[in-house]
Amino acid sequence: MTQTVDENFELGVPDGDDRERRICQTCGFVDYRNPRIVAGSVVTKGDQILLCKRAIEPRKGFWTLPAGYMELGETIEEAAQREAREEACATIDIDRMLATYSIPRIGQVQVMFRARLVSDFKAGPESIDVQLFDWKDIPWSELAFPTVVWALTHYAETRGKADFVPYGNPPNTDKVTR
Amino acid sequence: MTQTVDENFELGVPDGDDRERRICQTCGFVDYRNPRIVAGSVVTKGDQILLCKRAIEPRKGFWTLPAGYMELGETIEEAAQREAREEACATIDIDRMLATYSIPRIGQVQVMFRARLVSDFKAGPESIDVQLFDWKDIPWSELAFPTVVWALTHYAETRGKADFVPYGNPPNTDKVTR
Repeated sequence: MTQTVDENFELGVPDGDDRERRICQTCGFVDYRNPRIVAGSVVTKGDQILLCKRAIEPRKGFWTLPAGYMELGETIEEAAQREAREEACATIDIDRMLATYSIPRIGQVQVMFRARLVSDFKAGPESIDVQLFDWKDIPWSELAFPTVVWALTHYAETRGKADFVPYGNPPNTDKVTR
Repeated sequence: MTQTVDENFELGVPDGDDRERRICQTCGFVDYRNPRIVAGSVVTKGDQILLCKRAIEPRKGFWTLPAGYMELGETIEEAAQREAREEACATIDIDRMLATYSIPRIGQVQVMFRARLVSDFKAGPESIDVQLFDWKDIPWSELAFPTVVWALTHYAETRGKADFVPYGNPPNTDKVTR
């Protein structure tokens, strides 16, 4: 049921639209593709930061923040809470939005929150390991994605601040690669 | 080519997934649906605010902010600039993020910016009319969507402020309606 069916699709402009979409040549279904939202959190307990070692590709074995695709029927905050639950069996208390990153090359918008850990934790099915790290022990060379580095460094700038303006992409990282 | 093909789809859980998706019974295509991002702006010139009268459904004939679905290959800011260009033939200078609203009932996240008009303007193909309004003249009873009201009232709170924390949903408007 999950076979690749790309051969059924050809590009065409649907009626009333102004750009090419993938249209199934068998049944006419239009596969509208829009950017997807990744919701995640920098979760802290005291001065320590929660990281998850990925059990799945891409970047299996590398450390990441609890984050993943937002699903229909939830708010961004609920998506971030669900991801912490699924990946780290953790309950988190969301403080405020830390950053919003656009990654056009892969069609993603990532919304990262600052959050506090308010439960125990352990590896969920998508994680090999979950640990709390002191800042000096963060495995920078083993982080899964650039946005994990961005979110951690932006988080560090907000330490001790109750209010702050959420961050966007670091300089020169928002170039559109079509 | 744009016929309704819903009769081909049935709900099922794809391999490696953990929730039901729409799967085409003809070819096995999985129609992953995630929330979509609407990017828009409260565009001002001096003390006046730019509104567009909708030429298309839904809410044809009602006034809205220049906003619309983000497309693949662009940043959120580029999407907001494109929508201002398409709906109001306007070039805008984005200042900063005004608000992010989750509307789970319709599977949307709306990211609204504060922006300045830096060009002439006129109605684009999706607008009947485009006008600059003084605050006292905003047609509150003829606004197209609740989020237009939210963004305008949140914008009013930021007048004269260079920095501010972006707004979220007004109280009691983020209830998940599944």
